[in-house]
Amino acid sequence: MNSFASLVQQFETYFLSQKTFPQQPETLYDPCNYLLKLGGKRVRPVLCLMGNELFGDIIEDAWHAASGIELFHNFTLIHDDIMDKAPLRRGHTTVHEKYGLTAGILCGDVMAIYAYRQMSHVKNALEDVLEIFNKTAIEVCEGQQWDMDFETRADVSIDEYIHMITLKTSVLLAAALKIGAVLGGATDGNTEKIYEFGKNLGIAFQLQDDYLDSFGTDKTGKQNGGDIKSNKKTYLLLKALENATNEQRNAINTLLETDSENKVTEMLELFKTTGADAACRELVNLYSNRAFDCLDQIAVLSKRKQPLHDLASYLLQRDK
Amino acid sequence: MNSFASLVQQFETYFLSQKTFPQQPETLYDPCNYLLKLGGKRVRPVLCLMGNELFGDIIEDAWHAASGIELFHNFTLIHDDIMDKAPLRRGHTTVHEKYGLTAGILCGDVMAIYAYRQMSHVKNALEDVLEIFNKTAIEVCEGQQWDMDFETRADVSIDEYIHMITLKTSVLLAAALKIGAVLGGATDGNTEKIYEFGKNLGIAFQLQDDYLDSFGTDKTGKQNGGDIKSNKKTYLLLKALENATNEQRNAINTLLETDSENKVTEMLELFKTTGADAACRELVNLYSNRAFDCLDQIAVLSKRKQPLHDLASYLLQRDK
Repeated sequence: MNSFASLVQQFETYFLSQKTFPQQPETLYDPCNYLLKLGGKRVRPVLCLMGNELFGDIIEDAWHAASGIELFHNFTLIHDDIMDKAPLRRGHTTVHEKYGLTAGILCGDVMAIYAYRQMSHVKNALEDVLEIFNKTAIEVCEGQQWDMDFETRADVSIDEYIHMITLKTSVLLAAALKIGAVLGGATDGNTEKIYEFGKNLGIAFQLQDDYLDSFGTDKTGKQNGGDIKSNKKTYLLLKALENATNEQRNAINTLLETDSENKVTEMLELFKTTGADAACRELVNLYSNRAFDCLDQIAVLSKRKQPLHDLASYLLQRDK
Repeated sequence: MNSFASLVQQFETYFLSQKTFPQQPETLYDPCNYLLKLGGKRVRPVLCLMGNELFGDIIEDAWHAASGIELFHNFTLIHDDIMDKAPLRRGHTTVHEKYGLTAGILCGDVMAIYAYRQMSHVKNALEDVLEIFNKTAIEVCEGQQWDMDFETRADVSIDEYIHMITLKTSVLLAAALKIGAVLGGATDGNTEKIYEFGKNLGIAFQLQDDYLDSFGTDKTGKQNGGDIKSNKKTYLLLKALENATNEQRNAINTLLETDSENKVTEMLELFKTTGADAACRELVNLYSNRAFDCLDQIAVLSKRKQPLHDLASYLLQRDK
């Protein structure tokens, strides 16, 4: 059994040694290579390999599927960054900022096609793999659309928010595991469980990410708060508004309309007094527990589950 | 054997009766449905059906593949219109003009994925079909990139121009026929011939389109000239520059820098005196003849070829 860290290194070597793109036209493929070489955590492709290894030795198909999933993920990053007008990705200039809007659109497009080409190289259970991948790819687009829509909507519910992050973030993690499991020869019951594990893990991770964006500090110990500054409709804000007294709601709405220096600290205080912070931590625990329950229920020897257990614990920064 | 017109009608009925997209999120799928319902000539999907029927009865798979090809084509139109800043498509407001940039990017993306989902529903020769489709989809993106690059380049050669229109326009027509042929059970030799037929037909058609944009008239009898007004590097312009004397070249370059009322008529005169117009008509004939030669060489009864022969004659507006 390989650890997550070992598989990340193996995947990185494999992925970057592939001559995925031809040289010409440079204006199309240079931006593609630029993004891929910026790195990234490679969580999704490695989950595909781990999903395979949970049930058997990693087969050649899983490497193709893992590459396809990583290419697809990078395609969504390129186009999301355009829609979000993001200047930075992985600490570097975003593709559309560096190469222009046309290159951003078109190199995203061609990367999506290369993703499908990699998926098409799968020889075992190709139809099943494509069905999972297609369904998931559509959901990821839908999640991004909901996220965009929420920016201009005042009536976003918490259920809608959870649905959005599920589609935008979690289903691709879940599908990566499930495709790996299918390639590893898992039973239908086990593939469903691994999917649910990935989905709940993804939701827990995203909620925790939201929490840390507000309550965490960066490497220098500086208070975060990017979501608060940009009025992002995170779980914390939605829950605070739901729980708020009239007075608290007025305070939140006033803060949303200001750019004052104290905006972050005052909003954090409101997140605490409304109980949104505690509710967020509870929800992270709820989805984490669901994820670990699903993993427990998968019918393989528990030592085979250890790498996934370790990874989930690491991602959710909690001890076993 | 079905005529082109009959298959267009059958495809239109089939395609629009499919519930391709779900209802939600409306902001994602309304723009998709908007474009698909604007119509279009449906040449590509019908070529897929005709490629099948050249070799045998049309099978269910061909309808999926035809739908996939039409969805893919529409996806490229949405994104090309963004890159070209085009206000109109099929006589109506373009998707990004009507719904915004984010919707334009994202509904193009999701339509590409639905295209792949349709292709994945093919049951016979799925691997072969996907290989043709992937290769072609990549080439179409590359063609669009070359087209974009040419806008700012002063040294575009005629060979490069032909290569660009081959990728941007012809290979999808060719691949539609080839996928149909594969599904019809054609031999490798015949599938290659039908591909070459489609490729040469596409090049001839695009060159003729360029010619008519300059020398043709619209429905009201008004002189065209859109390409000339926008300084588009068409075959006519490139050939005129290649053939020009120094004096003629100076005249062309001066015209390229003006927006004068006489720009179109003076450029047309230069296209004639440099012999670019005659060279264009000759090249249309050359590629047309190659297309018809390929069709002749396909080893099936000639009466089976009649619908494709009729269609090619119609598209190239020439008699048998």
